[in-house]
This record gives sequence, C-alpha cells and structure tokens, in this order.
Amino acid sequence: MVEIRDYERVDDLQVNGLKIIQNPNGFCFGIDAVILSNFTKVKKRSKIVEFGTGTGIISILLAGKYKASHIKAFEVQEDVAEMANRSVLLNDLDDRIEIIADNLNNVCEYVKRDSVDVVVTNPPYFAPKGGIKNPEDKKAVSRHEVLCTLEDIIEKGAYCLKGGGAFYMVHRPHRLVDIIALMRKYRIEPKELRLVQPYFDKKPNILLIKGVKYGNPELKFLDPLIVYEKDGNYTKEIYEIYGMESIDVFGK
Amino acid sequence: MVEIRDYERVDDLQVNGLKIIQNPNGFCFGIDAVILSNFTKVKKRSKIVEFGTGTGIISILLAGKYKASHIKAFEVQEDVAEMANRSVLLNDLDDRIEIIADNLNNVCEYVKRDSVDVVVTNPPYFAPKGGIKNPEDKKAVSRHEVLCTLEDIIEKGAYCLKGGGAFYMVHRPHRLVDIIALMRKYRIEPKELRLVQPYFDKKPNILLIKGVKYGNPELKFLDPLIVYEKDGNYTKEIYEIYGMESIDVFGK
Repeated sequence: MVEIRDYERVDDLQVNGLKIIQNPNGFCFGIDAVILSNFTKVKKRSKIVEFGTGTGIISILLAGKYKASHIKAFEVQEDVAEMANRSVLLNDLDDRIEIIADNLNNVCEYVKRDSVDVVVTNPPYFAPKGGIKNPEDKKAVSRHEVLCTLEDIIEKGAYCLKGGGAFYMVHRPHRLVDIIALMRKYRIEPKELRLVQPYFDKKPNILLIKGVKYGNPELKFLDPLIVYEKDGNYTKEIYEIYGMESIDVFGK
Repeated sequence: MVEIRDYERVDDLQVNGLKIIQNPNGFCFGIDAVILSNFTKVKKRSKIVEFGTGTGIISILLAGKYKASHIKAFEVQEDVAEMANRSVLLNDLDDRIEIIADNLNNVCEYVKRDSVDVVVTNPPYFAPKGGIKNPEDKKAVSRHEVLCTLEDIIEKGAYCLKGGGAFYMVHRPHRLVDIIALMRKYRIEPKELRLVQPYFDKKPNILLIKGVKYGNPELKFLDPLIVYEKDGNYTKEIYEIYGMESIDVFGK
C-alpha cells in the first residue's frame, strides 16, 4: 500500500489508468510536461533518461504509453523524488522506472556514456539572474538554473545518448538561441521544432525541440500547437493530448 | 529617360509612387522581399547595406519609406545589377541608393568596418548540394549558395555593422539552426524572430530574423505572420503590407 499524505492529492491521468501524487501547495506538473510527453517518441525496448522529473509525470506517461521501455529519472530535490517514487509504486511501474534522487551532473555514476536511446527533460527555464537563488526554495530550483544550467543538461544529455539517439526538451522561446548554440556545441543537432501558441495569431510561449546526436543539419518545423480557440475553449488537439475528462489538470 | 527593354515590365509598387523594372522571364521579386522590407526598421540618416539586391526592390522600398537613409546595395550578377540601377534612376533615388555590381565578399573595398547601421539581405536559401551550380545560371545564383555562402553573408554583415547595428534577414525555417549558430559565431545576437505561415495552423515556410551586433542574449518571438485566411484570401496584415491594389505582385 502506497502512502498518501494528508496534504497530497492523487490525480487520475486518464491514460491507461495511470495516477499521480501531487502536492497542491508545493509542486504540481503543468501543460509543459504533458505536451512534452506527447511530443516524445520512443521505440520498443528503449533506454530512457529523464532529467528533472519533478512529480514523475513525464516518465510515468512514457512508461504507460511505451510498455517495454526502461527509464532512469533524476530529481535533485529529495522530498520531490520521494513523492515521485511513490507515484511510480502506485502505478506498479517500479520495474521500469527508477527515480534517482541526485543532481543530473552526477549522471555518470548511474548511466554509461553513449548508452541511452532517448533523453527527455523539462528543465528550469530561467537563467539565475539577480544572484544565486536559495537552493532550499523548491519552486526556485524547478524554475531557475540554481542547481544545474541549460549547458549542464545538454552536455549530460549528449554524454548519455548513443549516436542517433534523441534528445527531447520543452523550454521557453526566449532561450531558443542558447538552446540551439549549446546543442550544436555538444553535437546534438536540432532536428524538429514545434512551437506552442496560446492562440493561433499569437507568438509562442512554449517550444518543443528534438535533437539527434550526431544528426545532419536540417531543422524541420512542425505545425504549431495551438492551445485555445478564439472563444477561449481548448483546441481539439489539446483535448486529444489530455483526454476529454482530464482537462482539469490544466490547473483551472 | 530610363530605358525599358521590350522583354521587361514596369510595376507600380503602390507605395509613395515607387516603380520597379522586372524581367518576367528571368528575375522577379517575391513575397519574401516585400515582407523583409516591412520587417526592417530604419532610423533617420541611417547607413544601410543590402546584400544580393536582385531587382533592387528592398532598397527601393526602404529608401521610399525612410527618406533620409543612404543605401549601398550589392548584386553580383551584372545584368541584374544594371536593371536594378535603372529602377533606382526611374525612382530618382540615385542620390541615396548605390547599386554595386560586385560580390559581397568584396564588401571591404566599398564599406568601412563598423560603419553601418543596418544590413538587410534576402540571400540564396539553399546550400549548394549536389555539386557546384553553374554560376551563369541566374536562378541558381539567386537561390543557391553558388557565389556566396550563408556564412559569408553573416560574416560580412558583422564586418559592416557598428556595435548595436541591426542585421535583418529573410530565410527558410530549415536553415534556422545554421543561421543562429553563425550569427552567434560572428557576434550578431539574434534578437527577434518572426515566422511566416501560409495558414494559421500550418508550419512556417519563411522566417524573418533580426540580430544586433554585440547584443545581449534573449530572443523575442513576434506574433506569426499568416498569409492566407482559411478561405484562401489574403489576411488583413498581408493586404496592409502590400497595399490593396498591388496584390498581383504575388505572382498570381
């Protein structure tokens, strides 16, 4: 029996009966994690590494969708990792998802070089401007590059991946230049870019990028993912990604 | 009196009475040049360099819109440059636009280092795959990197620009990674990106990018420029960029 604490909540993910434990006052997953899971493509018997798993949502969705995969998911915040691990147990996925409560910069202690098929990450989005944030502040750690930088994530992703292996990341458009420059630096060639726009005529506020280790240069843009119709309802594609009944996980 | 040859056509640009000479069987401007002119912002008394002016359309539109600017416009193909020069004369703009019939790689013979406010370019889009194209083939020279590469254009743009000067380019989305990596290499920081989509829900097929020499990292996406409504009519913004009467310059 998996323990659920009185300040926690269990949500049904509406996909293959998957559930997740969240802490409404601390750390919940957002749309970014769900659309990244949808964007990520995994072949049979893939080895996957996730950096910064938070609640575990991305690894749980991928393990639920791609049955035979094996995932090592890093989460530096010990209590968040512990909560994610209980979600893994709740879904009987502990044979395929290993939550590692450590900084992704220590990845070489857990993962062999050039051994992984897919790296997936929903990292902190913001450079640590205005001095070092308090590393005890959970929201700061998940949003700002306090304990790892964008360069760490891309460098360690390249370390893990086989040649031809895929790197999937969700991030913010204002960092695109840094993302592309760093991916090139570590020889993860950006191959697919999908921009997420709140409305069809508005600039994107989220990006999804796929890179391939040692890939040839040529970027493919995908059709934009539009979140809302003009009338403020979700678009058909967003409903499809979430499943009709689970639309409340948007945090409404 | 400016000579118009019997195989040429004079089009009214619907902007400040501007006209342009084109050769319908050889070399006409496209939507890319018009939207790049619209995207490009020029301050008073700016010094401008254009690389690969073709018919002269971009320089003529900028000179028509920004009265006090001075433009040096490079065009490597001598007969195309000669036609562009007649368009400059036709518009009485020869005091402000100088057409230079030379390869932009010789720019240092004509322009001082760090002296220019704005560089604007609608370059060849395609890498010269499959061997060297015939340099006598006009369409190949304007479409493929036969006589100059993307790196030449960005390097020479950086050579011309003052610190804080702006680099404006139209290009194709599949080259975005090369564009960003090269701009970073030559310290033209990408600052604004506008994607042009045929329809609101379709991936972009044109991109507009603005970089600033020695600018700070942070990319601003602009709202997408959508060309067609669902019903196939042009959008309001496209009509505004072109002017209602001149919509036939799309090449319909």
